[in-house]
Amino acid sequence: MACFIVISEIRIVLIETSHPGNIGAAARAMKTMGLRELALVRPKQYPCADATARAAGADDVLANATVVETLEEALEGCTRVFGTSARLRSLRWPVDSPREAAEQVAMRAGQGRLAVVFGRERSGLTNDELSLCQRLIHIPVDPGFFSLNLASAVQIVSYEMRMALLDTKVEQAPEPGESPVSAEIMQGFFTHLEETLIKVGYLNPEDPRYLMPRLRRLFYRAMPTHNEINILRGILKSFSISKKRGV
Amino acid sequence: MACFIVISEIRIVLIETSHPGNIGAAARAMKTMGLRELALVRPKQYPCADATARAAGADDVLANATVVETLEEALEGCTRVFGTSARLRSLRWPVDSPREAAEQVAMRAGQGRLAVVFGRERSGLTNDELSLCQRLIHIPVDPGFFSLNLASAVQIVSYEMRMALLDTKVEQAPEPGESPVSAEIMQGFFTHLEETLIKVGYLNPEDPRYLMPRLRRLFYRAMPTHNEINILRGILKSFSISKKRGV
Repeated sequence: MACFIVISEIRIVLIETSHPGNIGAAARAMKTMGLRELALVRPKQYPCADATARAAGADDVLANATVVETLEEALEGCTRVFGTSARLRSLRWPVDSPREAAEQVAMRAGQGRLAVVFGRERSGLTNDELSLCQRLIHIPVDPGFFSLNLASAVQIVSYEMRMALLDTKVEQAPEPGESPVSAEIMQGFFTHLEETLIKVGYLNPEDPRYLMPRLRRLFYRAMPTHNEINILRGILKSFSISKKRGV
Repeated sequence: MACFIVISEIRIVLIETSHPGNIGAAARAMKTMGLRELALVRPKQYPCADATARAAGADDVLANATVVETLEEALEGCTRVFGTSARLRSLRWPVDSPREAAEQVAMRAGQGRLAVVFGRERSGLTNDELSLCQRLIHIPVDPGFFSLNLASAVQIVSYEMRMALLDTKVEQAPEPGESPVSAEIMQGFFTHLEETLIKVGYLNPEDPRYLMPRLRRLFYRAMPTHNEINILRGILKSFSISKKRGV
């Protein structure tokens, strides 16, 4: 059987949404395109009658939404994480249009869950949140008017995912070990990497600069598999051991 | 010069909108995508504070909107008229997806104004209204949930028009240092990596297995930039130094 990502398995994550109406409208936008999985990170006010009113029949999406404290929790089990932005960020993260992102998603076979993260209405995603995203979706708004409504952004991304997944062709699923790792496993690797770099004196925790974001960006682009993460962590371990032995 | 239609000349027509908030949200959706021309046919309640509130900065689109009694008036000067529907109508009108419609629009040179007509929130367009439209845009909603918000429909169509009419490929010329490295530089990095892995005992030169090919594949996928290769080689160097010092 084909192992294509099913549109209902794409998770939409909203961070610190201020207006509960936007949560309801986002749920409605998702459902019109066949998406079902909603995760809310520290919503300002939720549940709320406004959210239900604006959901207009997508109450089931709201009812099944998970409410969590951290973005890490919201991304549990996801192997691919996109952040979204209407502004192009100064930090040069890999950027796709919604269409390019959807095409990438459509081409992935049986590679686990996908999340698209939307930041706050006014201020979007913080750099720390962005660092948990492998790529950034930039919605090409008019440069003279950035004010894209949150639910409208969810609508556009969900629409593109639906368009891309409606006409996908079947590809083979990768072997076990050769599939991309989850967000948690990537975090574990980055922590291990950071600790090792501090130990060997390459990373100064007092003045970290952009070293870890840069390394994250590099390894996110590579989309390491389970086997590859095992190799990379093996290498980090061998550095620590050889250091102790003073080889 | 080519006489392509300019996105700000695409007219959005809303018929008998019930909720003034939807008019404001539609104006905002248009403006984010660079559309400016709004015509309202017999809006139930307009002008209205709700419309202005939901416009969120697109007040100018509202202020310039024309309010008319008939669809014919709203279509004045338009040479091309699309109707929209979330449901596939029994009447067999030529139907396009928003993308197909936008591509047709993008291919028209100097052929006059274009209008996209959106019907009532609950009941859409009447057959008489549809008969004034040359083609029908069907937004491919989930068959189990038709309830697409009016402003969301405007958002999707406006987005597709923008995508088709502008060169929206999100590309930024890389800064020096941010361009991918040459094959020679990659080879230099792989040699450095291999030597370091042998030194720390992770790679046995007598039995190298597929370690280096695997690492090559991983780093090739990442397509490192000059700055990134400098970081990676800095890390390898710091491992060697810390090893010598026996830190």
